[in-house]
Amino acid sequence: MVIVMQAHASEPEVAALIAKIESLGFTAHVSAGSERTIVGVIGDERPIEPVVFEAFPGVERVVRILAPYKLASREFHPADRVIALPNGVRLGGGQDVVVMAGPCAVESQEQLEAAAEAVHAAGVRVLRGGAFKPRTSPYSFQGLGEKGLLLLREVADRYGMAVITEVITPEDVPMVAEHAEILQIGARNMQNYKLLRAVGDADRPVVLKRGLGSTVDELLQAAEYILARGNDRVALCERGIRTFETATRFTLDINAVPVLKHATSLPVVVDPSHATGRAEFVRPVALAAVASGADGLLVEVHPNPPEALSDGAQSLTPAAFAHLMGDVGRVADAVGRGADGTDA
Amino acid sequence: MVIVMQAHASEPEVAALIAKIESLGFTAHVSAGSERTIVGVIGDERPIEPVVFEAFPGVERVVRILAPYKLASREFHPADRVIALPNGVRLGGGQDVVVMAGPCAVESQEQLEAAAEAVHAAGVRVLRGGAFKPRTSPYSFQGLGEKGLLLLREVADRYGMAVITEVITPEDVPMVAEHAEILQIGARNMQNYKLLRAVGDADRPVVLKRGLGSTVDELLQAAEYILARGNDRVALCERGIRTFETATRFTLDINAVPVLKHATSLPVVVDPSHATGRAEFVRPVALAAVASGADGLLVEVHPNPPEALSDGAQSLTPAAFAHLMGDVGRVADAVGRGADGTDA
Amino acid sequence: MVIVMQAHASEPEVAALIAKIESLGFTAHVSAGSERTIVGVIGDERPIEPVVFEAFPGVERVVRILAPYKLASREFHPADRVIALPNGVRLGGGQDVVVMAGPCAVESQEQLEAAAEAVHAAGVRVLRGGAFKPRTSPYSFQGLGEKGLLLLREVADRYGMAVITEVITPEDVPMVAEHAEILQIGARNMQNYKLLRAVGDADRPVVLKRGLGSTVDELLQAAEYILARGNDRVALCERGIRTFETATRFTLDINAVPVLKHATSLPVVVDPSHATGRAEFVRPVALAAVASGADGLLVEVHPNPPEALSDGAQSLTPAAFAHLMGDVGRVADAVGRGADGTDA
Amino acid sequence: MVIVMQAHASEPEVAALIAKIESLGFTAHVSAGSERTIVGVIGDERPIEPVVFEAFPGVERVVRILAPYKLASREFHPADRVIALPNGVRLGGGQDVVVMAGPCAVESQEQLEAAAEAVHAAGVRVLRGGAFKPRTSPYSFQGLGEKGLLLLREVADRYGMAVITEVITPEDVPMVAEHAEILQIGARNMQNYKLLRAVGDADRPVVLKRGLGSTVDELLQAAEYILARGNDRVALCERGIRTFETATRFTLDINAVPVLKHATSLPVVVDPSHATGRAEFVRPVALAAVASGADGLLVEVHPNPPEALSDGAQSLTPAAFAHLMGDVGRVADAVGRGADGTDA
Repeated sequence: MVIVMQAHASEPEVAALIAKIESLGFTAHVSAGSERTIVGVIGDERPIEPVVFEAFPGVERVVRILAPYKLASREFHPADRVIALPNGVRLGGGQDVVVMAGPCAVESQEQLEAAAEAVHAAGVRVLRGGAFKPRTSPYSFQGLGEKGLLLLREVADRYGMAVITEVITPEDVPMVAEHAEILQIGARNMQNYKLLRAVGDADRPVVLKRGLGSTVDELLQAAEYILARGNDRVALCERGIRTFETATRFTLDINAVPVLKHATSLPVVVDPSHATGRAEFVRPVALAAVASGADGLLVEVHPNPPEALSDGAQSLTPAAFAHLMGDVGRVADAVGRGADGTDA
Repeated sequence: MVIVMQAHASEPEVAALIAKIESLGFTAHVSAGSERTIVGVIGDERPIEPVVFEAFPGVERVVRILAPYKLASREFHPADRVIALPNGVRLGGGQDVVVMAGPCAVESQEQLEAAAEAVHAAGVRVLRGGAFKPRTSPYSFQGLGEKGLLLLREVADRYGMAVITEVITPEDVPMVAEHAEILQIGARNMQNYKLLRAVGDADRPVVLKRGLGSTVDELLQAAEYILARGNDRVALCERGIRTFETATRFTLDINAVPVLKHATSLPVVVDPSHATGRAEFVRPVALAAVASGADGLLVEVHPNPPEALSDGAQSLTPAAFAHLMGDVGRVADAVGRGADGTDA
Repeated sequence: MVIVMQAHASEPEVAALIAKIESLGFTAHVSAGSERTIVGVIGDERPIEPVVFEAFPGVERVVRILAPYKLASREFHPADRVIALPNGVRLGGGQDVVVMAGPCAVESQEQLEAAAEAVHAAGVRVLRGGAFKPRTSPYSFQGLGEKGLLLLREVADRYGMAVITEVITPEDVPMVAEHAEILQIGARNMQNYKLLRAVGDADRPVVLKRGLGSTVDELLQAAEYILARGNDRVALCERGIRTFETATRFTLDINAVPVLKHATSLPVVVDPSHATGRAEFVRPVALAAVASGADGLLVEVHPNPPEALSDGAQSLTPAAFAHLMGDVGRVADAVGRGADGTDA
Repeated sequence: MVIVMQAHASEPEVAALIAKIESLGFTAHVSAGSERTIVGVIGDERPIEPVVFEAFPGVERVVRILAPYKLASREFHPADRVIALPNGVRLGGGQDVVVMAGPCAVESQEQLEAAAEAVHAAGVRVLRGGAFKPRTSPYSFQGLGEKGLLLLREVADRYGMAVITEVITPEDVPMVAEHAEILQIGARNMQNYKLLRAVGDADRPVVLKRGLGSTVDELLQAAEYILARGNDRVALCERGIRTFETATRFTLDINAVPVLKHATSLPVVVDPSHATGRAEFVRPVALAAVASGADGLLVEVHPNPPEALSDGAQSLTPAAFAHLMGDVGRVADAVGRGADGTDA
């Protein structure tokens, strides 16, 4: 870290700060500029926070030099990481773009069956579907729970698909892990640390969604919680952030794709359905994600969107989804990779 | 709700929509404008979401007429609600402004004792302190856990103070409720619905903090989760939101105080410590909160901020806090109310 | 518009509102819901603002039904508009993607020459370069002024390229129009209405950049100022908005591309250089823009970025740019269109 | 500045950077940390931008040490600055809080007369009113122009009030300065640098409004443009920023008041009318501003808000304004200062 002292910081203030730095096992390096004294903290600063020094008298500002995460950084693990699923799907590392698709919420055997058939026909090998649904309103449909998980498993097995589904509370992790190949942490739970630790202890890959008010740095720190428990099969998902723009439900931070690729070797996934909130915008934004280097997509598909119990407005029909898959294949090809399940 | 059809929506599209509206038990009211047909949904729309209609062919946009919460609304409960604590403190309803103060995290017996003594001497009757700390980095101090709760209880009892402390997971609710008069839900957990239901089932008042990326409407919907379980002793806490401004840690949404007062009769609390992130800005912002009509404040005080294990930069010293309390009393008086524990 | 009355709005309040509506030449349509009375305003609401009714006693909220712009809307002009330049370049309407490239600021004959040669060699037919530079700090390089325009013209002519350059004040419009085929309005001037009217009166196409704190609706209203003066050769440019994310200079709102395509038939351009602020992220984000349907790109290229007087960090080298152009061609091809100047 | 090199930056890269630093007249100070080399730039960095170094090979990040403005900083001018008007009003420096009030737009002799009479009766000595109105839609009322200025002057003179009014284009500055004691720069023009230079050359105090997407740092850099021309009578106005919250028109950044007070000695003014957009929220937010240390307020008052041609929803009636003034006096008193024109 670099600590900028106030213009008129006194020598005793600098001395007290140096003592603190050294008491934490770091070396202090003082540099007197023309208008400010700057104190460098030499050592691995990652485990400490700037706030440790900010409260010292005479300190104006503390600037991190290293990212606040380690295991998640590309510096620590330069080579792209690849998440391999039992059914042969490989996510990350310049492999084919993996499209994970299915309904927002599992509603019934019929609905799930129809959705699964459609996405499978379009080439998809990872079925998404929510059994536990965190909903803004207590009066909204909250999912079928474990019954939904059983349906997902049964239908996915019939098509040889892997399952990705959300887990929302630590004690459910073992049960969800029993039925799904990939555990999804939703945006609202990105900083639910007990849950992060629980999936960190599970023997399952995790797709960690970025909180809608969270920075890329915070997303990587959340991933660090999982990695620190020994689970390094983590993919990061950009799904739109909160901004002042109201024309779409959220604003997809497309910059985040290359930013993440630069900062980490973990796979990066994009969810164009939540990021836009409207089916008509899913296709162009999904293609943008692929062109920007995303390793995977999470797409909502419903056999009959107007009757969806959740997120119908952003769900693609089977026909629209099939059309999208063709485009995904072509754009993936244009940027030098294929799309899982397509022949493009 | 009001449903705006697209310019060229067909008659069958309007008919299908009307059928859907009626199937949900509402009445449809069609109004043909000069350029758009508008369909009104007559009935209590609160339990349904606009998305139910957005996916219908021919629909351009759906606009809510009523707020998406009911129990939390002032319309449902016009009179200000007052939360009464066993030690006589009363929060809300134009009563004295209640200042809840103490350290960010409980670190040790000595630290807590010193902080408690200081805030008590300044007139405070509700001691704050964190035993379970959700932290952005897995390498940061995560709190003393139950040991911290025991310390809080013991010290608070010595001074006749009530305790407010954060609970971060549903299964901890009974234990925390045993030691604390008020359960705090942190910003990161505002949409942790299982946790909201758990505190909704507890026999304790709740201070619910606004998520840093959450709207006022979403805060009120989160409160609705708690109220819907039968616990109506909920106070709402504005603690700063994420914006593009980086001069402070967050941006205190001072507008939210009167907006909440207008929308709900639940008490409103402001946390100037987290909202600014810097001790030197806490006083002016705390006074602003009181002037704007806040019923309470949550203020971080540490006997020795440079040695704090968490949030030292935003913690007031005992001397600065005592000074603040005097000002709070005077501003509270200027807007026609007192401050709990002061003689102003 | 739809006007939602407060729960307890009185009959005289409704009557006064209706009188106002009718005095403005509209018809009022009253609908009594179960909990609110709603008053529809029938007629072309575009020229009026909701605020006209918001101040009336008893009014809770006013909701627009139609977009607040008319000439700029796709509803008014359904067919895609194409801007044709004298040198044969055609922007918009599903034509080839047009890449406009060159240095951020014109610095010298040599610098411009080198940049122009490089972008021309890569296939570019529209040269960008700033002669008048609005800069955040008064101490930064503010551009060469008219001398820069003369250089642009001379160099562009040598390569048969058209010129796009920014105009920052109304009185400069005629002079700039003399030297450039396209007038650019910068993000900071998106709501400089006198300037918008001035370019509306000029016989030149305009690229209007979105303000960094402006919504898509406001961008379209700004375009409406230009269209209302009779100049309908306007392209809209997404160049990143202000959000809480600090990993990049701005956040490219990729959603805005399809949103704009839906709302208007004007061509849409994306500036990946300003939107990211870092050269290493320009390529993935530029390709994302093409995949999402953008009609053109504005890319900064400098022969020697470390020596640039402005925006060096986001400028591509000639080699990186040439590489980008190949990719742009392939992605454009994948989404069914070509890229101007490439053979892909 | 502090320049952080990439982990594997080479010696020649560091050497090239040092050469650049020295060529600009600075001294370089190299510090080899455990994982990064850091290069300090010693000298007055204010006139240069980080971007000058960001494009160098091997550079990871550049961090400013000093604020990017000088004349506007409290460090340069520690003592609070006071703007004295001919009629005895003094703004800033712990003087009485100055309330500037009047209609958003001057509409007619009668309207202005009624507004002026009301605000004067409540103690106001600075009349606000817009003659040139920048409006989002080209179809909205754009102000009476010079005729409005003449009305303002005439009515203000009758009451011994000073006039504050907006100027929107450089060539109008002399004319507006002839009729008004204070020139206002609107939020949309905060970065209209030609206009800033023009008011910098005028012999009139300036109230500079913060752009709705601008940081506090950018506001101070905009002020620097005016100060650099020799006009040091500049007050800064917080009027709400763009955030994701839609319950109010903008989000008042109350933190900005103490942040500005810390960073600069220029007076700070708050506009609660634009910051909230609704009359019912103006009072609490205005009082918050006073409690937080604002030196002045800009408040919209209209004799008949429902008939206002602009911003009626946020305009106070004369009665509501008189009530506000009493409260402002009391809160100002509570924080140790008076309110201009009140006896509190």
